[in-house]
Amino acid sequence: MTEEGKDGRRGVSIGRRQRKNEGRLKATGAAMYADDLRLPRMLFAKTVRSTEPHARIVRIDFSEAKKLPGVIETLAGHELPERYGVIPWTQDEQALCVDKVRFVGDPVAAVAALDERTAEEACALVRVEYEKLPALMDPDEALARTDVLIHDERGANHQDNLTKRVQLAFGPVDEKLAQSASIAEADFFYEGSTHAPIEPHCALAQWDGVTLTVWSSTQIPHYVHRALSKVLGLSAARVRVIQPVVGGAFGGKSDPFSLEFCVAKLAMKTGRPVKMLYTREEVFYAHRGRHPMKMRYRVGLSKEGAIEAVDSKIVIDGGAYASFGLVTAYYAGQLLTGPYRFGTYRFDAARVYTNKPPCGPKRGHGSVQPRFAFECALDMAAEKLGIDPIEVRRRNFVGENTETVNGQWITSNGFMQCLESVERASGWRERRGKLGFGRGLGVAGSMYISGTAYPVYPNQMPQSGVVVKLDRSGRVTVYCGASDIGQGINTLLAQIPAEELGCDPEDVSVVAADTDLTPVDLGAYSSRVTYMCGLAAIEACRKLRAQLDEVSEATDPFALRVEKAEAKAGTTLVSSGAYRTQKLGADYRGGTIGASPAYSFSAHVAQVSVDAETGLWKVERIWAAHDCGKALNPTLVEGQIEGSVYMGAGEAQMEAHTVYPENGLLRAPNLLDYRIPTSLDTPEIDSLIVESNDPSGPYGAKEAGEGPLHPAIPAIANAIHDAVGVRLTRLPFSPGDILRALRERKC
Amino acid sequence: MTEEGKDGRRGVSIGRRQRKNEGRLKATGAAMYADDLRLPRMLFAKTVRSTEPHARIVRIDFSEAKKLPGVIETLAGHELPERYGVIPWTQDEQALCVDKVRFVGDPVAAVAALDERTAEEACALVRVEYEKLPALMDPDEALARTDVLIHDERGANHQDNLTKRVQLAFGPVDEKLAQSASIAEADFFYEGSTHAPIEPHCALAQWDGVTLTVWSSTQIPHYVHRALSKVLGLSAARVRVIQPVVGGAFGGKSDPFSLEFCVAKLAMKTGRPVKMLYTREEVFYAHRGRHPMKMRYRVGLSKEGAIEAVDSKIVIDGGAYASFGLVTAYYAGQLLTGPYRFGTYRFDAARVYTNKPPCGPKRGHGSVQPRFAFECALDMAAEKLGIDPIEVRRRNFVGENTETVNGQWITSNGFMQCLESVERASGWRERRGKLGFGRGLGVAGSMYISGTAYPVYPNQMPQSGVVVKLDRSGRVTVYCGASDIGQGINTLLAQIPAEELGCDPEDVSVVAADTDLTPVDLGAYSSRVTYMCGLAAIEACRKLRAQLDEVSEATDPFALRVEKAEAKAGTTLVSSGAYRTQKLGADYRGGTIGASPAYSFSAHVAQVSVDAETGLWKVERIWAAHDCGKALNPTLVEGQIEGSVYMGAGEAQMEAHTVYPENGLLRAPNLLDYRIPTSLDTPEIDSLIVESNDPSGPYGAKEAGEGPLHPAIPAIANAIHDAVGVRLTRLPFSPGDILRALRERKC
Repeated sequence: MTEEGKDGRRGVSIGRRQRKNEGRLKATGAAMYADDLRLPRMLFAKTVRSTEPHARIVRIDFSEAKKLPGVIETLAGHELPERYGVIPWTQDEQALCVDKVRFVGDPVAAVAALDERTAEEACALVRVEYEKLPALMDPDEALARTDVLIHDERGANHQDNLTKRVQLAFGPVDEKLAQSASIAEADFFYEGSTHAPIEPHCALAQWDGVTLTVWSSTQIPHYVHRALSKVLGLSAARVRVIQPVVGGAFGGKSDPFSLEFCVAKLAMKTGRPVKMLYTREEVFYAHRGRHPMKMRYRVGLSKEGAIEAVDSKIVIDGGAYASFGLVTAYYAGQLLTGPYRFGTYRFDAARVYTNKPPCGPKRGHGSVQPRFAFECALDMAAEKLGIDPIEVRRRNFVGENTETVNGQWITSNGFMQCLESVERASGWRERRGKLGFGRGLGVAGSMYISGTAYPVYPNQMPQSGVVVKLDRSGRVTVYCGASDIGQGINTLLAQIPAEELGCDPEDVSVVAADTDLTPVDLGAYSSRVTYMCGLAAIEACRKLRAQLDEVSEATDPFALRVEKAEAKAGTTLVSSGAYRTQKLGADYRGGTIGASPAYSFSAHVAQVSVDAETGLWKVERIWAAHDCGKALNPTLVEGQIEGSVYMGAGEAQMEAHTVYPENGLLRAPNLLDYRIPTSLDTPEIDSLIVESNDPSGPYGAKEAGEGPLHPAIPAIANAIHDAVGVRLTRLPFSPGDILRALRERKC
Repeated sequence: MTEEGKDGRRGVSIGRRQRKNEGRLKATGAAMYADDLRLPRMLFAKTVRSTEPHARIVRIDFSEAKKLPGVIETLAGHELPERYGVIPWTQDEQALCVDKVRFVGDPVAAVAALDERTAEEACALVRVEYEKLPALMDPDEALARTDVLIHDERGANHQDNLTKRVQLAFGPVDEKLAQSASIAEADFFYEGSTHAPIEPHCALAQWDGVTLTVWSSTQIPHYVHRALSKVLGLSAARVRVIQPVVGGAFGGKSDPFSLEFCVAKLAMKTGRPVKMLYTREEVFYAHRGRHPMKMRYRVGLSKEGAIEAVDSKIVIDGGAYASFGLVTAYYAGQLLTGPYRFGTYRFDAARVYTNKPPCGPKRGHGSVQPRFAFECALDMAAEKLGIDPIEVRRRNFVGENTETVNGQWITSNGFMQCLESVERASGWRERRGKLGFGRGLGVAGSMYISGTAYPVYPNQMPQSGVVVKLDRSGRVTVYCGASDIGQGINTLLAQIPAEELGCDPEDVSVVAADTDLTPVDLGAYSSRVTYMCGLAAIEACRKLRAQLDEVSEATDPFALRVEKAEAKAGTTLVSSGAYRTQKLGADYRGGTIGASPAYSFSAHVAQVSVDAETGLWKVERIWAAHDCGKALNPTLVEGQIEGSVYMGAGEAQMEAHTVYPENGLLRAPNLLDYRIPTSLDTPEIDSLIVESNDPSGPYGAKEAGEGPLHPAIPAIANAIHDAVGVRLTRLPFSPGDILRALRERKC
């Protein structure tokens, strides 16, 4: 980083509050989302979905549908039989079911028509004959039964309903547990929830006879690019994927989805552009939201409160397809081992197929549920020893430049400042235990990754590339494959050239997420974008900066500097930079799923009030401190903290994405019945930024988009316990649950 | 160039027939032209145009227009007073007239409304009060009168109606004329014509509060970028210009046009996107078509037929604004000095303002008219000596690697092969003079530029930049600022990476003409694009080729080669290349307007039949040979030759863009009255490609889009003379003119 002032306009953009550069377009309605796109002669497509949770497809009859005026084309699964999936080792999805359906809502057929209503009417006329199979609605049952296989196509080595089981142990767990002064042992259940993005999934395809172009509301254009190539049997060099402005994703647009393949194939069959927009109901069925988890934890503390042993057994209810589930099974165990030092650790996580809508990554993927369980168990164990919840967390601080029990290398670590920050801001010392019955404070901490060491498919190429071009007008264009799904990467990608080159950030044009226009970036998941694209952008800018410095002073007008450098170079000024995993240095211990180049840390204190008569309760306030390394744009970091806390608090309060076990229908497939917090349900949130200036991150930055979600739920649970003395172990915490617990305690 | 076969798929794309890569989209209706674009909340704007050829604006009253429901905003000239023009030294236009109007159709005001019809109705309600001024309709009168100044704002140094006068002499012209064995001396008149593109001018602007984006049907996005910045008072770093697919231009979209500024300002005033589409009538008034020229030529030959002296005086009827007129005045003289050696040469060209729609560049800009006059005069002089028309041209061949009389350096020169080619193909030797009265053959030759040595505004930067990016899928993206206006540069920009890198040309994505996405290219004019962008693209590709060759064999699959090279480089593979004027080598004699790095050459033989009873005549066939250096894609070259011959023949046969002198109204401001040849009016065309393999051009290529237009008109005139013995010197050659000439000859 340059020193401020000395160097023209350089070095003043990073760390400044700047509004999102696409904010105006969104606020004025000018932003073009996928469904705003129109192409000449465009058709509209709709999906026929399974009405059975588990069944063989006997026959699909399109004859009545084809008779409807305005119907142009139909599509069945056998036309796109190639299996795909975001994880190379669990390719278990098909664009449309071929032999069997695995959940109510599984896509079975598609119809393209002149307008959306006709397509919808035609779908109702498609007759699908099913032969019912036993439906497995509970993951324990699915684990136990081998006579019913949801994915019977997986062959002799997979005569079960496991997506993935991960069993890892670090140190003599049983021995340490036996020696512990205090052991907490409990069962926890984390209910499933869904992302509920404002924008439904939408895709539009155009086929010009040579190249397929797909616009999709996705957060992984690069993987969609690869999946389209595979499923459609087209060279990837003939496929272009463009992500328009996205209206919310939260992990719910991290898989290739049926509609992307269907519009592509229908466009190729008809020679016309084809669009499909999911209804809100379809979004709920397609979702890939938070996995329900059944978790058993044992946490043993020494009499000084040191964490001697953690042992967990987790059954993950995956729904009908794998999605990121293999990773979920790892994350459920691997990401728990900070911010505290674990003496020993063991986990056994099984991700199980059931005949329900498939789960996948939702903000805080895989580790939100275990974090809830562990942070509650930690409180329980500490309570027996009479150690204050903040104090027990402080005593177990893992530190920085250190290795976790499971071999992850932690660089910077601002957790202690986070803890002190929420302790101070909440008035913990003065107020805890003094708020009277029915009101309480709870604390929790957490750690999260800043991207993953592994690319999702093994390769030696950079995980993220950024190209920067300078125009003689002084305009700077940044080409980046990453998806801005609201987190603000496009704004950061304007700040970085401003910081490095001295241009005005508003003179930067960010071209994002278009496989033709932009370099490869793996996508917006695992909180990797700011970290990896940021480093790539800095590298690209510094090459250009050297060219500018060769011919002019940093204080010259920027456009003039570009002109001189372009004249000197005799060619357009363009450069690329990248994030390369393998160059993190000797300290890097990557190599396990869950390992990250840098970890963020959070601590929350929640304050709740509980009416012991009715069980009605509310989260009054959450103090959320987050170590994001360096806040490149504090406004965006605060926005991420607030959004995370909001989402976490919502899961604690009311969210539940569940099916009726008798028929596989969702209980709440719409935004009226699926309850998410309104502004009235949302607590006051204090976003407290802690800067640890990570040595590896871009200007010291780490992630901020997912980490701050984690502690909200256990902090609330611990606060409820503090308020009324009951320990809730099942999410969401309904007034009925509280009343029941209070009653049980009284018995 | 690489040898075929030896080097994988390299070296096999250039020279092959390949169809235009945007052809499918155009043919299926999927191509998105400017008027196909729709943005949320978009308004439609229309222009109020002058009804007077020359008048002061006394008052503009919008009050009635503003009352019309649906009218959102109005715009008057005083809001955009800054003058602009494509040539830096003749900035004489304003987006909307401020003080006075200079031709019927001059834009005076604009209205934005919810729909196009309302905007049109509102325009009719805008009251403009004029104070009439004398209108100058004839260039000679305009030259003579200094009491009426069309551009009175130009100050004390411009007390005349001259846009530009160029007088240059090379050698003792009068002395050589006096010594000549044969002198032809005649007056010629070349009527004005217009481009008549299928797509009318259209522009759409969006203002997000920071950046202005303008989509425009232009062939000069870079100059529009600069002009918008100047006129709107915005930093060029806050302006983005995008050229969508263009439906024909031919030079008629080479100026910044009023609508581009009006939609921009209206978008900024309203905060909403604003679109304007010219009606067909407006296209005729706005045009910038072929200048009418009055030309007097004296051509003196030695008794052997050598061109001893050429003397010309040219009055160019410019219309109301300069447009490219300064260049027109140079081109009218400078571009005549090949393919023949001139002993001495003098020209005096005056480009004059008149109160008519402004003229500018049309295919073959500036030199089509003098070429007609000179090639007729050459025939006339040779006839007196009894020298065959082809023979006199052969004897005067200027040669290659030589300098013209006016100091232009000619590299390759395939004119002799062109001449032989049409002589052979037309059966000239066997058939000329043997077709009977009423049928004849005529020949003509010409030379044209492959781009200009000068950029239009003086600067040291490249005239053209190309960026190439390689994706690990094997897809190649070429970013180029040049405009594909139908000539096929986007197709060549796919062939070049295929040639250099060995990819499939259909795996190349060409991103064109977007000032944010693409490097600067000066635009599609002066036949510069293939030459300059081609060289830039080769340079960019060869840098990448070196990276691929470092890690793999040319015969490896292309995507694998990219993967390996990306892994080795550790970053996205991207490079830029450029065309730099100054590095053409020691032989280059640039420095005068009209100088080019390489010249194309053409020869045509036309066959006509004339009915001496009625004067009705037709062009039966044209053999057109063109030296394009190297035909990078023979199909495209033939298309350019055919299009040129068609357009030239049309100008000879029927085209006339003229006004009623009494009121300044166009005689034919629509495609019914303005006559252009239909397929029935079009002669059989034999496109004969001659390859001289220019040492400086990309793979040896020179221009092909404008040169082959030139000889068509004089070849036809000479053929009419051969058929019926009359010499027509005024275009177009109407049956009435022929009858009159035949009658005069009989007298």
